[in-house]
Amino acid sequence: MTAIAPVLDTLDKNLDASLKRLFELIKIPSISTDPAYASDCRRAAEWLVNDLKSIGFEASVRETEGHPMVVGHHAGPKGAPHVLFYGHYDVQPVDPLNLWHDDPFDAKVKEVDGVKVITGRGSADDKGQLMTFVEACRAYKQVNGALPCEITILFEGEEESGSRSLKPFLDANAKELTADFALVCDTGMQNRDTPSICVGLRGLVGEEITVKAASRDLHSGMYGGAAANPITILAKVLADIHDETGRVTIPGFYDGVEETPSQILTQWNNLGETFETFLDPIGLSLPFGEKGRTLHELVWARPTAEINGIHGGYTGAGFKTVIAAEASSKVSFRLVHKQDPAKIRENFRAFVRERIPADCTVEFEQHGASPALQLSYDSPFLSKAKEALSDEWPKPAVVTAMGGSIPIVGDFKRVLGMESLLVGFGLDDDCIHSPNEKYDLNSFHKGARSWARILDAISKG
Amino acid sequence: MTAIAPVLDTLDKNLDASLKRLFELIKIPSISTDPAYASDCRRAAEWLVNDLKSIGFEASVRETEGHPMVVGHHAGPKGAPHVLFYGHYDVQPVDPLNLWHDDPFDAKVKEVDGVKVITGRGSADDKGQLMTFVEACRAYKQVNGALPCEITILFEGEEESGSRSLKPFLDANAKELTADFALVCDTGMQNRDTPSICVGLRGLVGEEITVKAASRDLHSGMYGGAAANPITILAKVLADIHDETGRVTIPGFYDGVEETPSQILTQWNNLGETFETFLDPIGLSLPFGEKGRTLHELVWARPTAEINGIHGGYTGAGFKTVIAAEASSKVSFRLVHKQDPAKIRENFRAFVRERIPADCTVEFEQHGASPALQLSYDSPFLSKAKEALSDEWPKPAVVTAMGGSIPIVGDFKRVLGMESLLVGFGLDDDCIHSPNEKYDLNSFHKGARSWARILDAISKG
Repeated sequence: MTAIAPVLDTLDKNLDASLKRLFELIKIPSISTDPAYASDCRRAAEWLVNDLKSIGFEASVRETEGHPMVVGHHAGPKGAPHVLFYGHYDVQPVDPLNLWHDDPFDAKVKEVDGVKVITGRGSADDKGQLMTFVEACRAYKQVNGALPCEITILFEGEEESGSRSLKPFLDANAKELTADFALVCDTGMQNRDTPSICVGLRGLVGEEITVKAASRDLHSGMYGGAAANPITILAKVLADIHDETGRVTIPGFYDGVEETPSQILTQWNNLGETFETFLDPIGLSLPFGEKGRTLHELVWARPTAEINGIHGGYTGAGFKTVIAAEASSKVSFRLVHKQDPAKIRENFRAFVRERIPADCTVEFEQHGASPALQLSYDSPFLSKAKEALSDEWPKPAVVTAMGGSIPIVGDFKRVLGMESLLVGFGLDDDCIHSPNEKYDLNSFHKGARSWARILDAISKG
Repeated sequence: MTAIAPVLDTLDKNLDASLKRLFELIKIPSISTDPAYASDCRRAAEWLVNDLKSIGFEASVRETEGHPMVVGHHAGPKGAPHVLFYGHYDVQPVDPLNLWHDDPFDAKVKEVDGVKVITGRGSADDKGQLMTFVEACRAYKQVNGALPCEITILFEGEEESGSRSLKPFLDANAKELTADFALVCDTGMQNRDTPSICVGLRGLVGEEITVKAASRDLHSGMYGGAAANPITILAKVLADIHDETGRVTIPGFYDGVEETPSQILTQWNNLGETFETFLDPIGLSLPFGEKGRTLHELVWARPTAEINGIHGGYTGAGFKTVIAAEASSKVSFRLVHKQDPAKIRENFRAFVRERIPADCTVEFEQHGASPALQLSYDSPFLSKAKEALSDEWPKPAVVTAMGGSIPIVGDFKRVLGMESLLVGFGLDDDCIHSPNEKYDLNSFHKGARSWARILDAISKG
């Protein structure tokens, strides 16, 4: 049992040195999607290996078909949990360069609207974030001569370009990389004062449907009223997907969907976000989905069916009185909890086929399928991490879910059988993937303090 | 009272001379849409004026802002009806030229699959057709020294390029051009053996609707389930247009729609065309529109709502989990009988607005509006023309309606207060507007004989 205060003090005192290290890492333009930067990606991996070694990790650059991985190991006290920490050292391209106010690869601290921020590509996504963890380990080790848990570190170099090598690498090194659970630092705060731990990720099923009617486009004057119109058929199918309460009508769609515990719903409601505040920035104000559900339930804990695209007939300027030969639509389903992607796809296809006239046909093309991921709200690691974060920040941490998918978490679950806690300190205005990416100095500094607290908390039985 | 047999004999005997004249007219490349052929259009008009004069018409080339009109007048017996005959001397472009088997402007008779046809651009649309009438007049005059009716002829030179000058010309010359009724020769036979008189033309209302939701495209993972999806809204609106019996649900939509007389329905049923025979060539087999209606009712005598185009969200290759900011659709209504285009548009817009959430908007763009045209099935001219045609062809003439619109007929009705009988001898395989346009020799020869019979029949009280 150690006291955490000296570790936090050390992080405060050494902030300038921590920043100096982060700046060095940001200066390496490790743009993974552009082959011209392949050697920079390798340099970033090597820089990280050396930095981990300086803390006492047994670390190495590990080859893949693409950019290398960084893997580090550090022993912990007997009986303490073993955690895998994940981050990525690669960054997005920087174009259009003329929109940047500062050199994207010459990081510095500057004040913007009274807030101190770290500038540069990767400052938030994900170099600044992964270094919060590394700095927490460094301070902990410096103060205590040891780490509170057994820690394995995995830094990827292809997160921004498709993570092509990740699954093969996990497969090949499953034993080495499997820990009690994973900590993933690639997400954001709920808001500037409220840290968040994301434990749920919606899954996804993508389907493209093409309804085919006549063998060619028809003149609607000649055939209108007698010949099948595939756009009309498609519109009927798509309109049938939701009933008047916003529920999805596909048979079996809600199989495996669980109700969110009431204490979690209360936490979410206490975030102070309403449909109005959530929708106002995008010019809307009214709830649209399932009636009788709260905002956060809808976007985090309920499945959805969304039409992502539709096309058919004449769509240019003016008018053409045509009955199209075919019409198509892209539809996606966000899945939660234990919904089965294969079943959802199968049931959806049956639902569509039932609505196609016997002389027309429908073709399907599948576009990905991933189940939802949901860590138990009862996990002891979760409650410890939540308490640790709540100690660091002005407001208590909130346990959230995410509407979108993060493939790495699925791979950890499926390949390594490991749950993940997603903790990150990014803010909505960090401009990740855009010009003028930044990371609040506060995110970096209190982020490192947060990890020190979390590692300390989860090490305690 | 004259006997018609000598006139028909004359048409038979002079067929070669008639063809020679038609070939001369086809040789003039009067492509109205291409300014390079403006002088050819004028040459065609002058050729027609001279030809009409040779029969005894008082004829002249009449200037417009575009290509000239040809107007001819010939007196008839006291008390005989006055008819206006309409055709057009301009033709479609001929590209792609390499697909033509014969020079499009060097007309000739050749045998194709055992059938003698006249080749060349304009052979069917509309030079061959208008010359059937001219040749009938010539033979009648030659035999009887007079014509059976007072006849005004109007040949237009811009039918294939928008008829820009037609309405101003009718306005400016209303008195001169108004007759008891119009004969329009720009349509086809019901089939090779069955002549047709078209007395109904569906009207048209075109509307483009754009549903706007969020102020920008949204990530469906972040916003899906809470934010309005304009494609979903649009699909619901479009799906609501028809009920499960295929009827249009827009309030007041059927106001002004009349039931077709049972003897006309019987005629149509006797045509031997079924949903199967009508739909088979386009790869379909099942009725799609209003249930409980016959094929010909649906395409000729019932109003329709057709979705002509739809577009929204991501429609490229692959998938994008986007919620679009807007989605749009082009919708058209075919109108019959006394349906009011303005009312239909207004009711449709109200119908759409009712279905748009309060925080979304909808915009409308109008694309044309024309009422339907319906000549009374009781018209005495109609029954006489029908009898005359039935005498000439293997099968009795059928009184039909048309699914599409022919603007000239609306202009005759609105500007000159004149009903039209549409009689033509084209066939479905004439390839009008396409390479290898042809007109059956039979269409030309029996077409001229048909007009002689019709003129004779309607002149008799």
